Amino acid sequence: MQTIPTAAVLVIGDEILSGRTQDTNTNYIAKFLGSLGIDLKEARVVPDVEDEIVTALNALRARYTYVFTTGGIGPTHDDITADAVAKAFGVGIDYHPEVLAMLAARYANPADFNDMRKRMARIPLGAELVRNSASVAPGIHIGNVFVMAGVPMIMRAMLEDIAPRLQRGAVVHSQTVQARIAEGKIAAGLQTIQKNFPDLALGSYPYYREDGFGVQLVARGRDAAQVEKAANAIESLIRDEGAEPQRISI
Amino acid sequence: MQTIPTAAVLVIGDEILSGRTQDTNTNYIAKFLGSLGIDLKEARVVPDVEDEIVTALNALRARYTYVFTTGGIGPTHDDITADAVAKAFGVGIDYHPEVLAMLAARYANPADFNDMRKRMARIPLGAELVRNSASVAPGIHIGNVFVMAGVPMIMRAMLEDIAPRLQRGAVVHSQTVQARIAEGKIAAGLQTIQKNFPDLALGSYPYYREDGFGVQLVARGRDAAQVEKAANAIESLIRDEGAEPQRISI
Repeated sequence: MQTIPTAAVLVIGDEILSGRTQDTNTNYIAKFLGSLGIDLKEARVVPDVEDEIVTALNALRARYTYVFTTGGIGPTHDDITADAVAKAFGVGIDYHPEVLAMLAARYANPADFNDMRKRMARIPLGAELVRNSASVAPGIHIGNVFVMAGVPMIMRAMLEDIAPRLQRGAVVHSQTVQARIAEGKIAAGLQTIQKNFPDLALGSYPYYREDGFGVQLVARGRDAAQVEKAANAIESLIRDEGAEPQRISI
Repeated sequence: MQTIPTAAVLVIGDEILSGRTQDTNTNYIAKFLGSLGIDLKEARVVPDVEDEIVTALNALRARYTYVFTTGGIGPTHDDITADAVAKAFGVGIDYHPEVLAMLAARYANPADFNDMRKRMARIPLGAELVRNSASVAPGIHIGNVFVMAGVPMIMRAMLEDIAPRLQRGAVVHSQTVQARIAEGKIAAGLQTIQKNFPDLALGSYPYYREDGFGVQLVARGRDAAQVEKAANAIESLIRDEGAEPQRISI
């Protein structure tokens, strides 16, 4: 049986923990990994504090096939991710000649290529670069860790460069059945279906909207035929309870 | 000097890690805690797997003043948070008479109060309840841990009930200065301001929009006068570089 690669996301940034910024990168990465058949198993958010980044990164990279970090690789004093990553791996960090050249070409006026901007060329020793179409400053690929920008547009462009380097797994198939019914009404039947399909994950997600409440029931798994059978069983269950199931794409 | 209470958020749910659902609860909790002067220090997302929940919860509750969990307290088979919390605390779990009565009153027809719905009355021994205006099923308060629903509307109502139980800290003040300037241009000056205001956290957040790029510079700290002074210094720095600073509220 094929091994399924796993992954964790490490979001680095005070602005997420202060509530100033709503993180959307984790959700984007989750979908991106899903399309490659890689299971996102955990996500963490830590502040711009070196020890916190080092500890979290070492815990995650020891446990999962890949770790994707976002944030903290710009030119300002609060961008400390590259140093923290070098420390986590126990390697040095220095100005990367190729990145220096790339950045120098970007800043036509040499006065604009100041020391703070040069910080973006500091790459942990032994790391590879993550080039991208949105920013001259690259991301970093070291061991099983991919270090990306926090700005969503740049982060997404970096993922494009990373994709070919990743081991893929069988893709997870998903079917969602929605109905205007209380989840407590079909919970026992859903549990039975879960027992009948032990290789699938069945989730129940109630919603409350202006036009009324209901539930979305999701079957997920790597065998599309099994997922379809489970979705059919869920539809029957809902009909048995007198409601009308609706297959939706999410 | 007053001790500042700290907190972590533990999001429990496969639907966040699969990318199906964009988590917004962490952001809401972050702002809520900010208004009480409690520092959110870490957030984690784990799947609906008991061992993962137990391990993460024990790591977080040992380290921070408070832990807030979201998700997994409904009636369906994938709602395993209450059991995981009991296991993490090493206590038993049983049907809570008061919650059973509350739920029984909610389901007028006894046939509707089925075994799965009764699961929502299973409360770790020694825990207190988190009542809320949005749902009869309560959240759970045990030790320094608050267990809340994943549905945002219900989670928010639960926070209202939790607020009076929390130790508050001095509130963090924040000023944001926006300018149409590359952050690399003012990075050195910003670093100097950071050194001059060691008790503040200065953050630099570039943005890219259709109408052009720019940066938002944020000064945060518990001394409002110091924050104001730092914001003034940032405005001067931006003007010195030939751009126009704009104080914005975020």
